Amino acid sequence: MSTTAYDDLRQRHQRLHHLAHLQAIASWDQSANMPAKGNEARSLALAEMGGLMHQLATEPALKSLLDAAATESLDELQRANLREMRRAWMSSNALPQSLVEAKSLAISRCEHAWRSQRPANDWSGYLENLREVVRLARQEAQLLADSTGLSRYDALMDQYEPGMRAAEVDRVFGELRQWLPGLIRAVQAKQAGETVLQAQGPFPTAAQRALGQDAMRLMGFDFEAGRLDESAHPFCGGVPEDVRMTTRYREDSFLPSLTGTIHETGHGRYEQNLPREWLGQPVARARSMGLHESQSLSFEMQLGSHPAFAGLLSPLVSRHLGEQPAFAPQNLNRLMTRVAPGYIRVDADEVTYPAHIILRYEIERALIEGQIECEDIPALWDAKMMELLGLDTRGNYRNGPMQDVHWGAGLFGYFPCYTLGAMYAAQWFATMRRAMPELDTRIAAGDLVPVFDWLNTHIWSQGSRWETPELVRRASGETLNPAHFKAHLESRYLG
Amino acid sequence: MSTTAYDDLRQRHQRLHHLAHLQAIASWDQSANMPAKGNEARSLALAEMGGLMHQLATEPALKSLLDAAATESLDELQRANLREMRRAWMSSNALPQSLVEAKSLAISRCEHAWRSQRPANDWSGYLENLREVVRLARQEAQLLADSTGLSRYDALMDQYEPGMRAAEVDRVFGELRQWLPGLIRAVQAKQAGETVLQAQGPFPTAAQRALGQDAMRLMGFDFEAGRLDESAHPFCGGVPEDVRMTTRYREDSFLPSLTGTIHETGHGRYEQNLPREWLGQPVARARSMGLHESQSLSFEMQLGSHPAFAGLLSPLVSRHLGEQPAFAPQNLNRLMTRVAPGYIRVDADEVTYPAHIILRYEIERALIEGQIECEDIPALWDAKMMELLGLDTRGNYRNGPMQDVHWGAGLFGYFPCYTLGAMYAAQWFATMRRAMPELDTRIAAGDLVPVFDWLNTHIWSQGSRWETPELVRRASGETLNPAHFKAHLESRYLG
Repeated sequence: MSTTAYDDLRQRHQRLHHLAHLQAIASWDQSANMPAKGNEARSLALAEMGGLMHQLATEPALKSLLDAAATESLDELQRANLREMRRAWMSSNALPQSLVEAKSLAISRCEHAWRSQRPANDWSGYLENLREVVRLARQEAQLLADSTGLSRYDALMDQYEPGMRAAEVDRVFGELRQWLPGLIRAVQAKQAGETVLQAQGPFPTAAQRALGQDAMRLMGFDFEAGRLDESAHPFCGGVPEDVRMTTRYREDSFLPSLTGTIHETGHGRYEQNLPREWLGQPVARARSMGLHESQSLSFEMQLGSHPAFAGLLSPLVSRHLGEQPAFAPQNLNRLMTRVAPGYIRVDADEVTYPAHIILRYEIERALIEGQIECEDIPALWDAKMMELLGLDTRGNYRNGPMQDVHWGAGLFGYFPCYTLGAMYAAQWFATMRRAMPELDTRIAAGDLVPVFDWLNTHIWSQGSRWETPELVRRASGETLNPAHFKAHLESRYLG
Repeated sequence: MSTTAYDDLRQRHQRLHHLAHLQAIASWDQSANMPAKGNEARSLALAEMGGLMHQLATEPALKSLLDAAATESLDELQRANLREMRRAWMSSNALPQSLVEAKSLAISRCEHAWRSQRPANDWSGYLENLREVVRLARQEAQLLADSTGLSRYDALMDQYEPGMRAAEVDRVFGELRQWLPGLIRAVQAKQAGETVLQAQGPFPTAAQRALGQDAMRLMGFDFEAGRLDESAHPFCGGVPEDVRMTTRYREDSFLPSLTGTIHETGHGRYEQNLPREWLGQPVARARSMGLHESQSLSFEMQLGSHPAFAGLLSPLVSRHLGEQPAFAPQNLNRLMTRVAPGYIRVDADEVTYPAHIILRYEIERALIEGQIECEDIPALWDAKMMELLGLDTRGNYRNGPMQDVHWGAGLFGYFPCYTLGAMYAAQWFATMRRAMPELDTRIAAGDLVPVFDWLNTHIWSQGSRWETPELVRRASGETLNPAHFKAHLESRYLG
C-alpha cells in the first residue's frame, strides 16, 4: 500500500511534535531549574534544535506534498489538519533565514540592554536598539503581507490570532474606548465608599505553594499530567501531555501568586484537554493566543474574581495562611477586585487593563504601518495614558514604554490578544448563563463542573478544528461581541 | 578558505553534543520530575531523538571524512579527538538498525515483566525473556567482535572500558579471588568485638536534603553548574555544563542517601571538570565507566569512609539531624564501614562488594562466550555465593540472579567496571600518599584541596585524551595494580 501525501505530512508533523516536546521541556527547565553556568550550553542546544526544526518545517518536498494532499480524499478533520499544516508551512517559509537570524540578534541585544536601561530610565539608549528591532519587524511584516495578501499589521497579528483583522479590532476596541474611561471613574467612586481590610503578612513561600496547588485542584488541574514550579517570570509551558506551570512568591503578599496561579491553570487545562487522539498534529493545537487568554481569564477573572468563588477560596486561604478577618469571603473578593489606574500593565486590575491594551494596539499598529517612528512613542504614550487613565507619565519612561520588553522582543500584533481574550471569556460566561440560569448558584455551591464541561466541549476539545470566528460562533451563537464584556464589568463592579 | 575534513567532523560532533544536551535534560526530567501521564509522550520524543542522533552518527559521508582527516596535519589533541571520533563511529555503525530495535524491544519486555516477576520469585518466567535478551546480546557481541577483531566478551566490555580485556580482568580478579574470602572473615571477626551505636530516626527528608547538599559543598560540587534532586533510582545525569545528580530519602535511615550522594558527587565533579575548551568533542568526554566509578568511589570510599573524614562529616550530620551519640566521628565511621556478607550487591559494603562483581563477571562472560546457557545461572550463582560469601541462595531467585535487571537490560561487560573503579581509586590514593605523606593529616584538618587538585590534574582535566592504560600509567606511574586495593582494605579494616 503506497503512502498518501497526507500520511507523509502527518508523519512529518508527528516527528516535529516529538522534537518540540524536548524543546519545550528544556525551555521550561531553563526557567525553572537551570543553574547559571548551564545557560550558554542550553542556549546553544536550543538554537541547534530551533534550526533543525526550521529545516524540517521548510523542506522543499513539503510544497508538493501539501498540493498533492489537497487533491486526496480526506474527511473533515483531516481537511482541517491540512489547512493548519499549510498555515504552519507558510509561516515557516515566509521569512528568509538571514532575517530570522538578524531579528534574533537584534532582539537579544535589545532585551539584554533593556535590563539595565529600564532602571536607569534611559529612553535614548533603548530607542537606539528598538529602532533596529522595529526596522526588522517592518520587513517581517512586509514579507508576511506579501505571502498572505494581508496588510502588514494584520499579517503580524494573524500569527497569534489567525483570522483576526485590525478592522475587527478597531470595531470592538472603538466601542470599548467610548465607555471604558467613564466606567473606571464610576467604579472608583463606588469603591471609595467601601471598607477593605488588608491581609497581614508575611506569607511563607511553602504555605503559598500549598495554597496554589489546592487552588489548582479546585480548578481541576490534573497533577498526573503536569506540575507547578517557580520561575522569575510565570508562564505555562511544557507539552499537552505534561503541562509545566510556574509562579513566583513574594512573602509580603499572597494574592499576586494565587491569582497568577489561577490564571496559568486556565492555560494549563486548555493544553491538558486538547483532543488527545490528534495530539502531534497541527489541528490538535490550541486555536490562538486570544483563545488561550480567554481560558486563563475565564479562570482568573470570570471564576476567580467571582463573588461566589471567594466563598470557595476563603477556606483554602485560611487553611494555609491562618485565620484573618481579611480572608473572609466578601473582603477577599474586594481585595481581588480593587480598581485603580496605574502605570504598569501587568499589575492592572480587570477594569483598567483594557486601557493599557488599547494604548499599545494603537501605537504598535501605527509603528508597523509606518505612520509613526519610535521617537514618537513617548508623546503618544503620555497623551493616551492621560486620556484613558488620567495619568501623567511624562519623562517616566521606565514605567511607560520601557515597562515591559514585548516591543523590544519584536512582539508586534500580540497585545490585542489580551483584551480579545477578556472579551471572549465574558462571551463564554454569558452563553453559559443563558443555557444554565442557575450557574452562579452552582458556582457558589462549589460545583464548577458545568463551567469546565462547557469549556471542554466548546473550546478545549476543539483544538484548531475551526478558524476562530467559526469556533466563536459555534460556541456562543454569535461572533465576537464586546457587549458581553461591558455587561460583565458593569454587573460585577457597579451592580 | 576550504574546510578541512577534521573541521567538518568537529562541527558534526558539536551538533550532536547540542542534541545530546536536550536528550540528557529530558531524560533527567523523566526520572526527577515527570508526572505519570507524561511518560508515553516523553518516551516517543526520546526515541525520535535517539533515532535522529543515530542517523547523524552513521551518515555515509563520515567514513571518508574520517579517512581524510587521518591524512591532515593535526596536533596531538586533535589526533586523540579523531581517534575517539572513529571509536564512536565504529560503535554506532557496528549494529544494524534491525538488531538495535529488536534489542530495545526485548529489553523493554524483560524489564517490564521483571518488575512483577521479582517479587513473585518467578525465575522461569524471567528466564524466558532473558533468553531472548542473551540471544540478541550474543549477536551484538559477534558483530562488535567482527568489526574490532576482539573476542566477543572483550568487544562488549570495550564499549564501557575501552582497552580493557578479559585477560587483564582475569589477572586482577584472579588475585582478588584468592585473598578476598579470607579478608572478609578476618574483618568480621575483628568487627565482632566492636560496639556500634545505631542512629535513632526518623530523619526528616528536608533535613537529609540539606545535609546532602552540605556534604556536596564539602566535596567541592559547583551548585552554579548543577543540582541535587530526587528520583527512584539515584544517578548522575545532565551535561558537563549542568550536572543533575539525584538521590532518594528514607526517613528511617540517613546513611544510604548520604553515602549515595557523596558517591554521585564524585561522578558529578568528574563531569563538571572535564576539559572545558574541548566540550562537545569526543576527546572531552569522561574516559570510561571504570574511571567514572573510580571517581565516585574515591569520593564515597577513599574519602567518605576515611576515619578522618568522619570528623568532617560528624558536625554536618549533627547540625541537620540533631545531636546523637551515634553521630560521634568514631561511631559514624564504624556505621559507614560495617562489613557483612549479604545477598544484594547494591547494599554491599566496600569489602564484600567485589565478591558480587567476581560472580557476575564469571557468569556473564561464560554466557556471552556460549559456554553456559541462561538455565545454568542459578546453580552457578549458588555455588559462587557459597564459595565467595558463604551464603546459601538456593531457590532465592529474587535476591539472587533476579535482584537487579542489568542482564535483563542487555548490560553485559559492564559489571567489571565497578570493581576496576574501586581498584583504580585505591591506586590514586596510594599515588597521592607517596607524593604527599601528610595527606591523611590534611584530610583530618578538613583540607581536601590536595585530593581534588590531584584528581583534576590527572583524571578530570584529561577527558579522553589518553586510552585508559596510558592514563593510568601517567597518573600513577604503573598500570592497574590490585595490590593497592588489597593494601587499602587491609589497612582500613584490619589496621
